[in-house]
Amino acid sequence: MITFYNASHLRHQGRLEMFRGELLPCFERADRVETVLAELRARRLGPIEAPEPFDDAPLARVHTQRYLDFLRTAWQEWIALDPANAGKDALPSFWPIRGFRSDRLPDNFAARLGLFSFDAGTPLTAGSWAAARGGACCALSAVRRVLAGERAAFALTRPPGHHAGVDFFGGYCFLNNAAIAAQALRDGGAARVAVLDIDYHHGNGTQAIFYERPDVFFASIHGDPRTEYPFYLGHADERGAGAGLGCNLNLPLPRGTAYPEWQQALAQALQAINGFCADALVLSLGMDTFEHDPISGFRLKRDDYYRIGETLAAQGLPIVITFEGGYAVDELGINTANLLQGFEQAA
Amino acid sequence: MITFYNASHLRHQGRLEMFRGELLPCFERADRVETVLAELRARRLGPIEAPEPFDDAPLARVHTQRYLDFLRTAWQEWIALDPANAGKDALPSFWPIRGFRSDRLPDNFAARLGLFSFDAGTPLTAGSWAAARGGACCALSAVRRVLAGERAAFALTRPPGHHAGVDFFGGYCFLNNAAIAAQALRDGGAARVAVLDIDYHHGNGTQAIFYERPDVFFASIHGDPRTEYPFYLGHADERGAGAGLGCNLNLPLPRGTAYPEWQQALAQALQAINGFCADALVLSLGMDTFEHDPISGFRLKRDDYYRIGETLAAQGLPIVITFEGGYAVDELGINTANLLQGFEQAA
Ligand SMILES: [Zn+2]
Ligand SMILES: [Zn+2]
Repeated sequence: MITFYNASHLRHQGRLEMFRGELLPCFERADRVETVLAELRARRLGPIEAPEPFDDAPLARVHTQRYLDFLRTAWQEWIALDPANAGKDALPSFWPIRGFRSDRLPDNFAARLGLFSFDAGTPLTAGSWAAARGGACCALSAVRRVLAGERAAFALTRPPGHHAGVDFFGGYCFLNNAAIAAQALRDGGAARVAVLDIDYHHGNGTQAIFYERPDVFFASIHGDPRTEYPFYLGHADERGAGAGLGCNLNLPLPRGTAYPEWQQALAQALQAINGFCADALVLSLGMDTFEHDPISGFRLKRDDYYRIGETLAAQGLPIVITFEGGYAVDELGINTANLLQGFEQAA
Repeated sequence: MITFYNASHLRHQGRLEMFRGELLPCFERADRVETVLAELRARRLGPIEAPEPFDDAPLARVHTQRYLDFLRTAWQEWIALDPANAGKDALPSFWPIRGFRSDRLPDNFAARLGLFSFDAGTPLTAGSWAAARGGACCALSAVRRVLAGERAAFALTRPPGHHAGVDFFGGYCFLNNAAIAAQALRDGGAARVAVLDIDYHHGNGTQAIFYERPDVFFASIHGDPRTEYPFYLGHADERGAGAGLGCNLNLPLPRGTAYPEWQQALAQALQAINGFCADALVLSLGMDTFEHDPISGFRLKRDDYYRIGETLAAQGLPIVITFEGGYAVDELGINTANLLQGFEQAA
């Protein structure tokens, strides 16, 4: 399988995130992608290529222009607020929740930082825009290859994307690579696209982006939002709305879920995607379902990832894979490569 | 003028608040109220009394029951999350902004903390509920006295209240004392009540609580939300909605505004309140309009507060005063006493 990798992800290295009233070191680290890259190379799982360049047009198919404008200039504005800010990452402090307005764009940068985000755990750094853009180019390059006839392509993206919405960042995510890929598949000729999100955390951004769309099916298997991040979305009763009613499938599972129960949810999601008659599949590949993930609660084991790869290959659809979460860095490369290898051997 | 003071405010002493990506010491300190109390005593400005007890019913006239339940048990749940939490204040890390749900109450306490708040600058401490409740009892005691025929009563409340909404805390505020007082005046027989908010920061909570109400007029003079906290509400085009259309008046002013321009806005607000034919007035008394306030941008001077007091007295309405912001602690007592004394001498 071809992998798209871009070194600009290294320019995004968040330092601190808010957790229970304290600023703690970020779990989303640059070595996450480097360890996957090393393992793919060691196993010779396929070519590793740099992404092609893309302009902002395919990003603007998913995100609002004012959000993209914000991201592009955010770091410069952060520094302009106070030159001393260069020494720390940008984190918001207030948010326009229910009853507040988000139609009026504040002049104050700190207020725009809050307007375009939903948590205090996603540091925006000097290199965040370059890294997120590079990741999106990986996803778009993977789409181009799949549209050209490849069975599968892997976008080794970082920062991840599935928590990012139409106009907000959060959950370590800035640009929604999976949504950008799904839209690019649509724009490239696929009539019906399915996004399958197997990250431990619900893909709230992707769900929200396509919630009223009949042409993109979203299915997610994740920790129950009653107890797991992102908490405020991901319930089983969210089935889509308007023209998209019935095109959203959430399969929340309790903490402690192991592979036997997890793979039943996978079978259910794939059955729904079959019923939708998708022409192409985007996989939001979070690896934080692993039993030793430090911030998650499922109990999948190393070898389970081979089985997942095989199951996805048996589905028969062309597939674009975007990399999402996964924080057990020591085994992240092995687990990810297991899944890709399982897919390759069964495809 | 009678002042209601409750020592339980001392049980709320937030340690750190998020500001530009860092946790910094809180500006909202307990000595704010103590210095005002000392100055009122020194000038013998009237009796200082403890509040009467009230049950939760008058709070539930303004706030949702699930929010009050949350506040009551929040500290115990914070400790239950991790006993080590006893050593730090509770601060949220994620919020249900646009597109997220707030109808489903998460089991996870950290998620409920975010659901019921809008910033990361309002530490919830072991004593926050007791302090906020004590402050609300001061406001309710002041209302009872005014309904019994007093011309004016001052609730020396802390934490402040005007940023707190129907079901959220933020901006150092937990219970909206001004809104609770206005509702208690209504329930006690006043047919039409006006709330005048002269804190430097827009009283977003009070506005939101009464936005569709024709019986409570809200007027606010504050720093322009394009540049000033709370940023996402407080624009001049917010005039109320539904039955309350026309009963909301925002007078945002630019940073640097001094008394000559400020008092024109005051005259305009009072004229509108006159036109509304209010039976009683609630004053949200923030003192952060002072020229040396560390987090605000107006340029009112010590003696200007006498004039404000005189102007309010000339209005002729019975008045309940709740204490809001004001962070120039060294002169906070003097400025507050100047206003109350100006009122007393002109009443
Ligand atoms: Zn995740
Ligand atoms: Zn204020």
